[in-house]
Amino acid sequence: MSLHSRGVVLHQFDASLAIETLEVPTPQPGAIVVRVIYGGICGTDVHLCHGKFPMTLPVLLGHEAVGVVHEFGEDVETDYSGAPLNVGDVVTWSSNIPCGRCYWCVVEKERTLCPNRLVYGINRRLDEWPGLSGGWADYMYLQPGTVVLRLPDGVAPEDAISLGCAGPTAVHGVLHRTRPAVGETVVVQGSGPVGLAAAMYAHLAGARKVVLVGGPAGRMSLARKIGVGDVHIDIFETTDPAERIALVLAETEGGRGADVVLECTGVPASVPEGMEMAKLNGRYLVLGHYTDSGTTPLNPHVITRKQLQVVGSWAFAEAHFVEYVRSLPLLKSRFNLSELLSYYPLQDAERALRDVGEGAVLKAVLDPARSTADG
Amino acid sequence: MSLHSRGVVLHQFDASLAIETLEVPTPQPGAIVVRVIYGGICGTDVHLCHGKFPMTLPVLLGHEAVGVVHEFGEDVETDYSGAPLNVGDVVTWSSNIPCGRCYWCVVEKERTLCPNRLVYGINRRLDEWPGLSGGWADYMYLQPGTVVLRLPDGVAPEDAISLGCAGPTAVHGVLHRTRPAVGETVVVQGSGPVGLAAAMYAHLAGARKVVLVGGPAGRMSLARKIGVGDVHIDIFETTDPAERIALVLAETEGGRGADVVLECTGVPASVPEGMEMAKLNGRYLVLGHYTDSGTTPLNPHVITRKQLQVVGSWAFAEAHFVEYVRSLPLLKSRFNLSELLSYYPLQDAERALRDVGEGAVLKAVLDPARSTADG
Amino acid sequence: MSLHSRGVVLHQFDASLAIETLEVPTPQPGAIVVRVIYGGICGTDVHLCHGKFPMTLPVLLGHEAVGVVHEFGEDVETDYSGAPLNVGDVVTWSSNIPCGRCYWCVVEKERTLCPNRLVYGINRRLDEWPGLSGGWADYMYLQPGTVVLRLPDGVAPEDAISLGCAGPTAVHGVLHRTRPAVGETVVVQGSGPVGLAAAMYAHLAGARKVVLVGGPAGRMSLARKIGVGDVHIDIFETTDPAERIALVLAETEGGRGADVVLECTGVPASVPEGMEMAKLNGRYLVLGHYTDSGTTPLNPHVITRKQLQVVGSWAFAEAHFVEYVRSLPLLKSRFNLSELLSYYPLQDAERALRDVGEGAVLKAVLDPARSTADG
Amino acid sequence: MSLHSRGVVLHQFDASLAIETLEVPTPQPGAIVVRVIYGGICGTDVHLCHGKFPMTLPVLLGHEAVGVVHEFGEDVETDYSGAPLNVGDVVTWSSNIPCGRCYWCVVEKERTLCPNRLVYGINRRLDEWPGLSGGWADYMYLQPGTVVLRLPDGVAPEDAISLGCAGPTAVHGVLHRTRPAVGETVVVQGSGPVGLAAAMYAHLAGARKVVLVGGPAGRMSLARKIGVGDVHIDIFETTDPAERIALVLAETEGGRGADVVLECTGVPASVPEGMEMAKLNGRYLVLGHYTDSGTTPLNPHVITRKQLQVVGSWAFAEAHFVEYVRSLPLLKSRFNLSELLSYYPLQDAERALRDVGEGAVLKAVLDPARSTADG
Repeated sequence: MSLHSRGVVLHQFDASLAIETLEVPTPQPGAIVVRVIYGGICGTDVHLCHGKFPMTLPVLLGHEAVGVVHEFGEDVETDYSGAPLNVGDVVTWSSNIPCGRCYWCVVEKERTLCPNRLVYGINRRLDEWPGLSGGWADYMYLQPGTVVLRLPDGVAPEDAISLGCAGPTAVHGVLHRTRPAVGETVVVQGSGPVGLAAAMYAHLAGARKVVLVGGPAGRMSLARKIGVGDVHIDIFETTDPAERIALVLAETEGGRGADVVLECTGVPASVPEGMEMAKLNGRYLVLGHYTDSGTTPLNPHVITRKQLQVVGSWAFAEAHFVEYVRSLPLLKSRFNLSELLSYYPLQDAERALRDVGEGAVLKAVLDPARSTADG
Repeated sequence: MSLHSRGVVLHQFDASLAIETLEVPTPQPGAIVVRVIYGGICGTDVHLCHGKFPMTLPVLLGHEAVGVVHEFGEDVETDYSGAPLNVGDVVTWSSNIPCGRCYWCVVEKERTLCPNRLVYGINRRLDEWPGLSGGWADYMYLQPGTVVLRLPDGVAPEDAISLGCAGPTAVHGVLHRTRPAVGETVVVQGSGPVGLAAAMYAHLAGARKVVLVGGPAGRMSLARKIGVGDVHIDIFETTDPAERIALVLAETEGGRGADVVLECTGVPASVPEGMEMAKLNGRYLVLGHYTDSGTTPLNPHVITRKQLQVVGSWAFAEAHFVEYVRSLPLLKSRFNLSELLSYYPLQDAERALRDVGEGAVLKAVLDPARSTADG
Repeated sequence: MSLHSRGVVLHQFDASLAIETLEVPTPQPGAIVVRVIYGGICGTDVHLCHGKFPMTLPVLLGHEAVGVVHEFGEDVETDYSGAPLNVGDVVTWSSNIPCGRCYWCVVEKERTLCPNRLVYGINRRLDEWPGLSGGWADYMYLQPGTVVLRLPDGVAPEDAISLGCAGPTAVHGVLHRTRPAVGETVVVQGSGPVGLAAAMYAHLAGARKVVLVGGPAGRMSLARKIGVGDVHIDIFETTDPAERIALVLAETEGGRGADVVLECTGVPASVPEGMEMAKLNGRYLVLGHYTDSGTTPLNPHVITRKQLQVVGSWAFAEAHFVEYVRSLPLLKSRFNLSELLSYYPLQDAERALRDVGEGAVLKAVLDPARSTADG
Repeated sequence: MSLHSRGVVLHQFDASLAIETLEVPTPQPGAIVVRVIYGGICGTDVHLCHGKFPMTLPVLLGHEAVGVVHEFGEDVETDYSGAPLNVGDVVTWSSNIPCGRCYWCVVEKERTLCPNRLVYGINRRLDEWPGLSGGWADYMYLQPGTVVLRLPDGVAPEDAISLGCAGPTAVHGVLHRTRPAVGETVVVQGSGPVGLAAAMYAHLAGARKVVLVGGPAGRMSLARKIGVGDVHIDIFETTDPAERIALVLAETEGGRGADVVLECTGVPASVPEGMEMAKLNGRYLVLGHYTDSGTTPLNPHVITRKQLQVVGSWAFAEAHFVEYVRSLPLLKSRFNLSELLSYYPLQDAERALRDVGEGAVLKAVLDPARSTADG
């Protein structure tokens, strides 16, 4: 008797999402069928539904998820780290599979730049076999080559989904491209999921002081509640950039500016503002600019005179996802991750998406086992 | 009987330079008096004379020079590298003396950022003892703490002055901040002294192909004559930036773009143009923006999407100067350095400065022993 | 009326220490006289007294200390970080002053390799002015050029002295030369002051798991008490190196070995043992080998086949000391630093030194204000 | 009508090689059949034939080769760099295909450590389809996933085979693991193929001086003839290690020692000797120790006191091979590569192997088109 799964499908941009019922295939060698516990919703999903990324529809959405192993294909004996894997184990997985063979995979070893990579919930069409290639569903089919990891001991599915793809994105940008050192002062511009995740990793890396520049007030008090940031500057209260810069400088050693500034707003004008918050010889990460929001006037003399290092970071690869999962026990012990979450039943995907788009919730997750709204 | 020296002095911005006669002091312990062979003129000198840098006048100009040891103070037995030093040896020296004690010298170890550093020919007033603190003179007084180096065997004073301060500036920016690797493709934007020096170091570092984007035609043919650049794109011929970008991409492996792009024009608009010439994951050096030439519209999304590393580099420190001198035999064996030079007598400093400002010559040097113009 | 200070002086190797009374000079411009609160004793002091380092006697000992500003010379207005400094402020200082002018200070920027550096309590003779150049005294004279820092808010003198010079030594070796990343597994060989400090910095840097390999039992339970190490392997219990290696590998992800191994024992044989604990592509820090303890058989094939990075780290420079002081609030919030300390009056220096030499105490500090033994 | 190929097959260690005739399969999609122009012989082949590496026989030998495209499978349109590929093009290829999916390929991105990688001529059995998996043959079958590159313009097959696998091995060790900088002094221990290749890359990277320590006399004069090394120290002439160390130090700036020392002998005792040739803060590459030749007494205090960075490097990955091919025009323009080669017909493989083992020739290559010996 065949198994079926509901799935939330995008057929047309700027239109309603459909809930469809699909057959769950038996896993081929190397593949795994998981029952989804939570499917996360991120800001990128909002952009996807508005057609801001090139993609071919229809697509079963959901590029962040946690689940339970339902059935293996042959040859699956361990998770990616080498730990034994059994039916019933709680797992999570990297949403992308680079080809492992192209110039970017082999020579540059920058797997986020692989032009052939499969991304669950984004670039695999519903009508391509095996169909269940997104996490907003009851079941999902993980193809061979997917990096699947058991959750570390003591880590609950709620913990693993709480940062969503902002977690590994911050691992890439913060830990690999700018690497805050023990004792450094770090400024984070932006208090959305990427900003909060970036700030968490700055804390984990031993930052002496993390200055969070964001807003509105509710978001800043949430940040305090989960333990993110040592100093909080609300841009809705301090609306003058020059004043914000002065406040930040006053928090730094000798007023010299921050060692590292992490841009997580996606607003072009925040880039020149943030560069003024950095010390001479400082590092500046342009992490939040996934979508094209246009230009901002920038003075190259600032980069020369301050001798800045300005670094971009695109998406995340499996290595960053592995590190993200490894760090979950540390994250959990330091931050109240559960404060981040709002739960929705699968059929409320559209409402959840709207709440995310409006900033009404920080992290929305779809729970297929839930039949009514959160609370 | 006391020794006297002529010196070219800036008393007032945008005014005539004065040739004055000054007494040459007897060197104190650790100091050296040199007889100047050549004093170089660089684009910064033009800016200085127009008051574009904050400085307190009067100043005896000249921050690039080569000379002969005339007299030692006590305790001087070797040059900086440890080689024995004698009266009559031909030497050159780093034009700046950082304090060695401040936060930037001690903690960050970025000596170009030292706020206390003395720079010969720029921030030491004529009326401060010992007065002879610039290279546009017959004699110059090198204070204790100056990094003085004998010219390597086979290197003539003409070779050592030919790149002027563009040499160590390129060592810092190119070799330390962006480090082209053997086999990489490097684009250099700009064909002034800094651009040519940057291109030379890209060649020395083993670049597979150096694409020089500059102009006008005379400058490009000079570059070919001295052996700089494998491909030459003249911006006066190809005036459309999009076309220039296409030409550069066509020269790169698989059309992916350059591994490293070095901005040496100081023109703000060249920064977004140059970023389009870089490959994904490429490195971009903002080297030419010593003076504030205003803003340019820049799209931060480009930095994120292309995952660029954009790096500034400020001036040069003694370490870069030592490396520059070490590399002179390599530079000399690869490039026709002598083609770069135009000679002027000391009294023609103003004419030389005008020629540099108008781009009529690439590298002007003052020769105190010469009484009439070049030729 | 002149001020006097007691001082513990080494006149002859392997002989008794003398307590002498010395005059406290009035500070010159840039200098500071401090009243010593605590003078630390480290394993190197034991070696010094046995003549294991080349040094010229007599020397007033003590290269680790914390004190109170007693009197300034002219021109002292702030501490090194730029914070205002007043008489009565509690401060600590880097025990070494490199020259800031030599090849190692200027070109390599490795100030621990400066051949001219002054080290308080070690290479400044008692009979050289100003005499009070060691911390085992009532007062100490800090020369111009000393990096002096106020203790950060909330940090007590006990906290600042608790790691002694092992603190900045670990900053250099661990944070600068091997840099554990967030989520990495770190093995520390050795549970003396350097081993514990190294482990603390591995924790601060976000290590997922710190495996401490040391002993004896008392030392390991102390480590647990202060919160150092996630796994503890007692070499007195597990005496077979092969078994220790197996225990360590079992603690690492997939049994692949540790990302980073930190050698802090000074025992040559621990080097090949520790290399077996590292993963392929791992990093190995040789930190504990300050004195020459002879050779060990080592197979270079292991370095090639495992593709190891084996790194030495010599002493610490002012930058590492500044970072150490910056990190004190983090250290204090994570570890029970006070458990490390045993106090002795100044006149019991010899007994304290013996206790350190025998491993009877972890960190002995001399307290000039105390007239009887600890407790 | 089917195509046949001769192949040199190892059936048993320490026994004769067989020349067998095998069928050439039609290439599957993504695969390429090449006609071999040259198959290189390296020292590792000698070890293979003596059973010093774990491998399962029978194996058609040859892990270095250059050939002509004979036939494509479907979907092959370009070479790896993106250049169009046609039948008749002269190509070379990386001898190894890592899996692209394991921990080492994906997380560490160290593809030489992939436990699943296929290596032509070494770990693919003759009786596994497609059989023609080694380069000592008339034809070879390149499986999908092989990095195949057209020779750059102006590069002949002789140039491409002249360094054999020592070329990409040196790219990995020298350019990636120790990176000599422009102007540095580099010592190379060993004048075999790896030593000469390492020295060539040190030259390409802009070394100021390359000191080659090797022998015997014939080898050293060959090195001079091809343009490798600025200073040559013959270990058969200078047999005392202390004297060799003194000679090297005398060639370095201020007698401080070399910036980088590259160990390419495989002799354990050369490691402590070479460490004495390095400056404080120097880099030491253990490149030559592919086989286990036992231990040597090493003093860890040297690593701490000199603050060395000692680095291993294992084999080469496709990225290093791509860089090697990219650098061939540079290598060819600087060095007389043709001096390195000795040619043998296929049927003389055993004699060629013996000549390599005895050091009678530097680089032996099998030429299937040749029916009689070289000359």
